[in-house]
Amino acid sequence: MKVRERAALAKGAAEAMLGLGADVRDRALAGIAQALAASSAEIAKANEADLEAAKRDELPGPLLKRLAFDERKRALALEGIASLRRLPDPLGRVLSARLLDEGLALKQVTCPIGLICMIFESRPDALVQMATLCAKSGNAVLLKGGREAARSNRLLGEIICAAGEKAGLPAHWLTMLETREEIAELIELDDLVDLVVPRGSKEFVASIQRSSRIPVLGHSDGVCHVYLHEDADPAMAVAVAVDSKAQSPATCNAAEVLLVHSSFAKDGLPAVARALREANVRLHPCARSAAILEAARFAPQGEEADSPDSARWAIQEGDWSVEYLDYEMSIKIVDSLDEAIVHINRFGSHHTDAIVTASKTAASVFMDRVDSASVYYNASTRFADGYVYGLGAEIGISTGKLHARGPVGLEGLCTYKWKLSGSGEVLADYASGKKRYLHKDIEGEGR
Amino acid sequence: MKVRERAALAKGAAEAMLGLGADVRDRALAGIAQALAASSAEIAKANEADLEAAKRDELPGPLLKRLAFDERKRALALEGIASLRRLPDPLGRVLSARLLDEGLALKQVTCPIGLICMIFESRPDALVQMATLCAKSGNAVLLKGGREAARSNRLLGEIICAAGEKAGLPAHWLTMLETREEIAELIELDDLVDLVVPRGSKEFVASIQRSSRIPVLGHSDGVCHVYLHEDADPAMAVAVAVDSKAQSPATCNAAEVLLVHSSFAKDGLPAVARALREANVRLHPCARSAAILEAARFAPQGEEADSPDSARWAIQEGDWSVEYLDYEMSIKIVDSLDEAIVHINRFGSHHTDAIVTASKTAASVFMDRVDSASVYYNASTRFADGYVYGLGAEIGISTGKLHARGPVGLEGLCTYKWKLSGSGEVLADYASGKKRYLHKDIEGEGR
Repeated sequence: MKVRERAALAKGAAEAMLGLGADVRDRALAGIAQALAASSAEIAKANEADLEAAKRDELPGPLLKRLAFDERKRALALEGIASLRRLPDPLGRVLSARLLDEGLALKQVTCPIGLICMIFESRPDALVQMATLCAKSGNAVLLKGGREAARSNRLLGEIICAAGEKAGLPAHWLTMLETREEIAELIELDDLVDLVVPRGSKEFVASIQRSSRIPVLGHSDGVCHVYLHEDADPAMAVAVAVDSKAQSPATCNAAEVLLVHSSFAKDGLPAVARALREANVRLHPCARSAAILEAARFAPQGEEADSPDSARWAIQEGDWSVEYLDYEMSIKIVDSLDEAIVHINRFGSHHTDAIVTASKTAASVFMDRVDSASVYYNASTRFADGYVYGLGAEIGISTGKLHARGPVGLEGLCTYKWKLSGSGEVLADYASGKKRYLHKDIEGEGR
Repeated sequence: MKVRERAALAKGAAEAMLGLGADVRDRALAGIAQALAASSAEIAKANEADLEAAKRDELPGPLLKRLAFDERKRALALEGIASLRRLPDPLGRVLSARLLDEGLALKQVTCPIGLICMIFESRPDALVQMATLCAKSGNAVLLKGGREAARSNRLLGEIICAAGEKAGLPAHWLTMLETREEIAELIELDDLVDLVVPRGSKEFVASIQRSSRIPVLGHSDGVCHVYLHEDADPAMAVAVAVDSKAQSPATCNAAEVLLVHSSFAKDGLPAVARALREANVRLHPCARSAAILEAARFAPQGEEADSPDSARWAIQEGDWSVEYLDYEMSIKIVDSLDEAIVHINRFGSHHTDAIVTASKTAASVFMDRVDSASVYYNASTRFADGYVYGLGAEIGISTGKLHARGPVGLEGLCTYKWKLSGSGEVLADYASGKKRYLHKDIEGEGR
């Protein structure tokens, strides 16, 4: 069947799901967990076949690790479904409620978005998570995983789809796609698909963002900053800089650039740099910070270790937007809070940026004017995460500014509609002045 | 200057505006109103020159009417600014507030979107409204009006921009664009422009939606429905159908299609049709409804009046998505609530749809399953409007599902960011289990 035809069937399912109660959706989650547990051996076998093929094709180690869906990961997936079931229903929440007139009640109520396309690389556990997030939020889903996980994904998709249907979700509520060509075709279908959620490498997400005609929820780059203001507490500067970079350097919320106020740098930078180096971080200083570090008897690392020459050591101006995703960090001296803010807005990726300062005023200016999804004051950038934020489940992190920004929970898979209930009211009566709008909030409803 | 350079300057202004307090923004509104009042004669002169040129070019009457910015419209524009000033500040609202741990406070706070491009056809009053909506919400704006209003718009843009700057808004906060070519170039600049808000004819909005790389807030079609369920009160059916179509037939929330349950149609449809016809509405019935109307001694209107032949009279199947924007309405018989819902989701434009019924259950099913921004129960579709909804100011009506749906108020020009304040907290302590998240809502804050 053609992609358009399959998407049209999925859209039909999405429309049928608009009327489903929380009971059906939660029952579907329970059924899915049960079916996955019952098919554990079969799933393990399919995954082993994928792993063997991947080893034969000599795929790199990290990819094999993401591909593996072992007993521990299967147990975690079931735990994830259980905790998703316990989350409150994201649908039917009244966001606002207002009497336009006596007997004419307007409510703004959350509802599913419709048909969501989720694309990810390998990772069978991501498939389970995404499918169940959509079931919980009443959305139909088109799923596309990595080719190397084809056997695992196909089986998981079949089990989850069938278990959902058995519990009352409509046919075609979950549709698997398997080729890149299908995706290329799919992201043109803006009349059928409401949202695309890509997860994977930055190149992958960026390519989807560039080519999709459908709104995309996600982020490609995570070029995060830590800015040490002139009055930063030296110990706190060390702690926040090291944690932001080295606690898990390959994550999107790890910091890539350390901005240091010149007044702090002279005395404070060497200790921060020493701590970073002790955490195995390779430093890429600007010319000014290289000079300060050399004065403090720092030498470059690695191949340039023999020639402590700040001009050779120093980072190139064009490199401020590099996302290392590794134990590497750029350092730049700035002369003012304003310079730091302008630098972050220009070279950053609007993901997560932190200031370390003793001044509430400086913090407030930084947090207002840095144009990022998450802005922090005396805390590590690593806190940018849906679970940490208490959102219950994380769909992903969005660097877009519309709909959902920063870590996105189940709310990101919902929209709202306006429901108006009356008893035959017509606009003519209000236009003529015969009746007047009341505009009274309905107590006990709405946020 | 090239469009990209001008947009880059505007983006710089947007970033400078992120830190502006409500005092500066409201002062800017006051200054703009004052400047407009002071330049009233000059504005009238520019507008007259536009009007004269438009008459020479023999532009159609409705366009001349939209182009005119006479004393009454100028007074209304000033009133609009005054009421915008009185609206509460849409920025800095705390949407949620949570202690991740003692001393580690996370707040989700509303803030401006950034740089917004607003495009409209002629209408100098729309320019004033859009520019001041952006000033109120802290966004920089790129404005493009119709060519026929070039003189009026250029002058208004200069006055408003200068008055805003004088009150403390940054240079380039308002930038005028004048040619279609500039717009074509602009809607490619997704690295600089955050949102496009087009207003105008459906063809115009649809073309922007098709070609923009930037998110678009708006709607092209308004194919709204009124569905008369089997148990509809006959008098209410007449009132809602007539008001939905004829109270102002050229507006986007006017109904274009009347769906009638077959059980209601036999006895109820003739009275509804009669009332519509008395309101000057030309009817386009399906074959089944044409037969019912003919049995009730109805004849087609206009050129076909001589041949009351239901086959000739009846609407073609392909026409269910026609937006008449005039005193014309399609009529279709359906045999169930489900058929009505499926028809609306398939042929409608997801704008506003109403059911007339005595059954709360039927209403609830209709409102859940019709996939439209506004869904009504026993009320006219004409109520879909930002002022009617009590939103204070209307940016427009969105048929998109993300960010803002249905009538959009000032909130639609805002996004949010996550602000986290700590005292040096690092993720390592939580990852190691040394500390645990508290996730306690902060009382008295958040919605």
